Amino acid sequence: MPRPPIYNAFLHLTPNHHSHGFWRTPEGRVQYGYKDLQPYVDVVRTLERGRFDTLFIADVVGVYDLDFGDGKTTIRAGSQFPENDPVTIVSALGYVTEHLGIALTSNIIQDHPFSFARRLSSLDHYTHGRVAWNVVTSYLSNGFRNYGHDTIVGHDERYSWAQEYVDVTYKLWEHSWEDGAVRHDPQSGQFFDPDKIHTIDHVGERYKVEGPHLVEPSPQRTPVLFQAGNSTAGRDFAARNAEVTFLPSLTPETARADIATLDESARAAGRAPEALKKIVALSTIIGSTEEEARRKQQYFRDNIDFDALQAFWSGGSGIDLSSVDPDTPLDELAKRVQLGDHVRSIFRAAADSQLDPSAVSWREYLLTKGLLPGKFAGTPEQIADHVADWVAAGVDGFNVVPVTTLGWWPEWVDHVVPVLQERGLAQREYEPGTLRHKLFGNGDRIAPDHRARTVGLSAPTTVSGAA
Amino acid sequence: MPRPPIYNAFLHLTPNHHSHGFWRTPEGRVQYGYKDLQPYVDVVRTLERGRFDTLFIADVVGVYDLDFGDGKTTIRAGSQFPENDPVTIVSALGYVTEHLGIALTSNIIQDHPFSFARRLSSLDHYTHGRVAWNVVTSYLSNGFRNYGHDTIVGHDERYSWAQEYVDVTYKLWEHSWEDGAVRHDPQSGQFFDPDKIHTIDHVGERYKVEGPHLVEPSPQRTPVLFQAGNSTAGRDFAARNAEVTFLPSLTPETARADIATLDESARAAGRAPEALKKIVALSTIIGSTEEEARRKQQYFRDNIDFDALQAFWSGGSGIDLSSVDPDTPLDELAKRVQLGDHVRSIFRAAADSQLDPSAVSWREYLLTKGLLPGKFAGTPEQIADHVADWVAAGVDGFNVVPVTTLGWWPEWVDHVVPVLQERGLAQREYEPGTLRHKLFGNGDRIAPDHRARTVGLSAPTTVSGAA
Repeated sequence: MPRPPIYNAFLHLTPNHHSHGFWRTPEGRVQYGYKDLQPYVDVVRTLERGRFDTLFIADVVGVYDLDFGDGKTTIRAGSQFPENDPVTIVSALGYVTEHLGIALTSNIIQDHPFSFARRLSSLDHYTHGRVAWNVVTSYLSNGFRNYGHDTIVGHDERYSWAQEYVDVTYKLWEHSWEDGAVRHDPQSGQFFDPDKIHTIDHVGERYKVEGPHLVEPSPQRTPVLFQAGNSTAGRDFAARNAEVTFLPSLTPETARADIATLDESARAAGRAPEALKKIVALSTIIGSTEEEARRKQQYFRDNIDFDALQAFWSGGSGIDLSSVDPDTPLDELAKRVQLGDHVRSIFRAAADSQLDPSAVSWREYLLTKGLLPGKFAGTPEQIADHVADWVAAGVDGFNVVPVTTLGWWPEWVDHVVPVLQERGLAQREYEPGTLRHKLFGNGDRIAPDHRARTVGLSAPTTVSGAA
Repeated sequence: MPRPPIYNAFLHLTPNHHSHGFWRTPEGRVQYGYKDLQPYVDVVRTLERGRFDTLFIADVVGVYDLDFGDGKTTIRAGSQFPENDPVTIVSALGYVTEHLGIALTSNIIQDHPFSFARRLSSLDHYTHGRVAWNVVTSYLSNGFRNYGHDTIVGHDERYSWAQEYVDVTYKLWEHSWEDGAVRHDPQSGQFFDPDKIHTIDHVGERYKVEGPHLVEPSPQRTPVLFQAGNSTAGRDFAARNAEVTFLPSLTPETARADIATLDESARAAGRAPEALKKIVALSTIIGSTEEEARRKQQYFRDNIDFDALQAFWSGGSGIDLSSVDPDTPLDELAKRVQLGDHVRSIFRAAADSQLDPSAVSWREYLLTKGLLPGKFAGTPEQIADHVADWVAAGVDGFNVVPVTTLGWWPEWVDHVVPVLQERGLAQREYEPGTLRHKLFGNGDRIAPDHRARTVGLSAPTTVSGAA
């Protein structure tokens, strides 16, 4: 029997994730606590009560600085700025939970893979095998300029960089330590068997890494791998590497086609399609009646900071949208800008929504379809129907996008989860074991046909002496 | 009135820190738990009960691989291999404590300073101002080869690298966000005042970093800075940058001279000598009688893995000591090897101990003076006398080096601390406030005459648009 859908709780360690400006309302002020630890401890305890599979911590490593050419809008509004570092919060959140997975975003431009692999292995030990890594390549030019680059590295080059990066981590996680290397044998004096621990001697385009891996194999070895890519290069990367991926689909109908495309890519990469879980974003406004839900949705939209929302889209699209009249029809906008990944996804979204791009203005689009949170307003029963539609289309789970990162979760857990559980659309209890076992039901290790297991070492050796 | 001495609890997240091979004894097997979180949670709770100032987490980023030319000995014995990453454990340990400082070692070769500064600021928020950074430059060539270098970077070059590295972090911590930048003002829509948040635009030998800093100012802004340097370049670096430093002194007499030298260096760097706390290592075997303590000390020495001890010294000295007959007198050894920093410190230690280097063998030296833990065996009262001697020589505090990283601390806390407290040689209660305030009694921020405050920005600007 297949497991019920996967639920990830989606958040950033930032004043405002996607509800731009909502912090100005009484309900939004809970975000003032964004920089402390305790509010997130409260969140994960709530999530575990609601049997969420994973806390998903998103991240960016720079400012969305394209709007009005100076980044002041996002800074003023606290929109994905600042961002505490996800990797620093995991051990505390893992300590106060028992089952919840913790997926952290880490950008290939921010850390050396030797350090990063070591960190994730440490955290996989501390959480008894509950960590996941969301692999991202930055789309913010300020992020690149924080790390010594003059500007953003080209899209396809970022993905070839990402492949080398993950390959280094695969070698460290899967191939540096053989099974059986841990001895703890006082008789022989072997805490470890040195003949079963190897350097990786990676030499590639960007990295040269000797090894061995500095942490003994953790419960999952390779953490569960999340990755979202909507471009061709991104989708190929996901098909080769990801175990959980995010669909761009805005409707169950388009999800069917997106899943078919992804499954084909997975097969082409030599993997079983079911080894790649497909997740969609789900963001709801919850009411005890439909009318209450719609009223709350309108209140939410009325309190959006349009400039901050536009600044967010500017950063994501690589275009200074402040230079575009917000009354411009969508198809007019398309003629003025280069069609980057994100802009393509806007038009894709417009098509999904059966909007006429010549009739809908850019402002109207942003305030309804371009706003991630609160897209679906309804009662818990209506939300369950909505969930069931997605599941019927073959979707494996959901990234639950909250209205506010902090404070909002009890609303979902107390009102929606029981209805979902009643219908078999959410788990009532956790499976024992590691995050990977909980998600895939097939043990702790990444699948044998995954690249992590097959990338291998060019020439395994023991640690060599210094030159 | 000056505060009582500072006590740091010194450990690594590794099977064996300095008690090479002791894990093979029944008392040492507690180290099998080295890779999990719970044993360290137990340690910090004990430390806080004993009013320790700081947990000091040491670290290395590679294998001590010089012995016998292959590193197998340290790997076999689990001697400072593997090492979980200190930065990943801090939030959990901070969450279960209220006052204990947490000093983590991070090597300049392992992380980009933009990422590292962000991590420390995040942790300073999560701990409410209780983090410290021990700045190190690696002495292990395998460490450098894990990060793309062919071999170890020269000693003086490492210190100029370190200066640029800490300067980048100073700019991010002290100069990117002005006081008053945090607004939380719904009326104006300012979560932050963007005119008070600046890029740093650092351009140096090794780094080019735009900024702004991605985390809002934490309670201490710059974490408390630890650094140990015994060479001329190292001591100059400490005098310019450190707030807590480790003396190489093995006796109170030599400590007086070492303190005078450091104070002079601090003055030359434009700093008040009392802004630099001087700490010595203190490692004791505790007995209810002197005889019991000596018996325990002998048991400890009898169970040392000599090859592992030697491998550790090989890595530290840069010499394959397995090629040296252990019966070689110390002064003979000196003729065969280049006098690096660590070897100089051996001879320094021999002189401190009033040993005759022509009469003492290398093996004998290693097993007594070369072994960090358990140097002083005595009753709690004798240990307090020993502490008082150091304090009288002007020492500000101690790095307490345990026999085993895990399991040993209650012995110290239950038996020695009460005697120290009785004599006014240890604090009975914590001062409120940040770690820096607890240590220096002068507020949360690093001193105004410290380089961190004066290094400044070449040309402060707001965030600039993309090229």
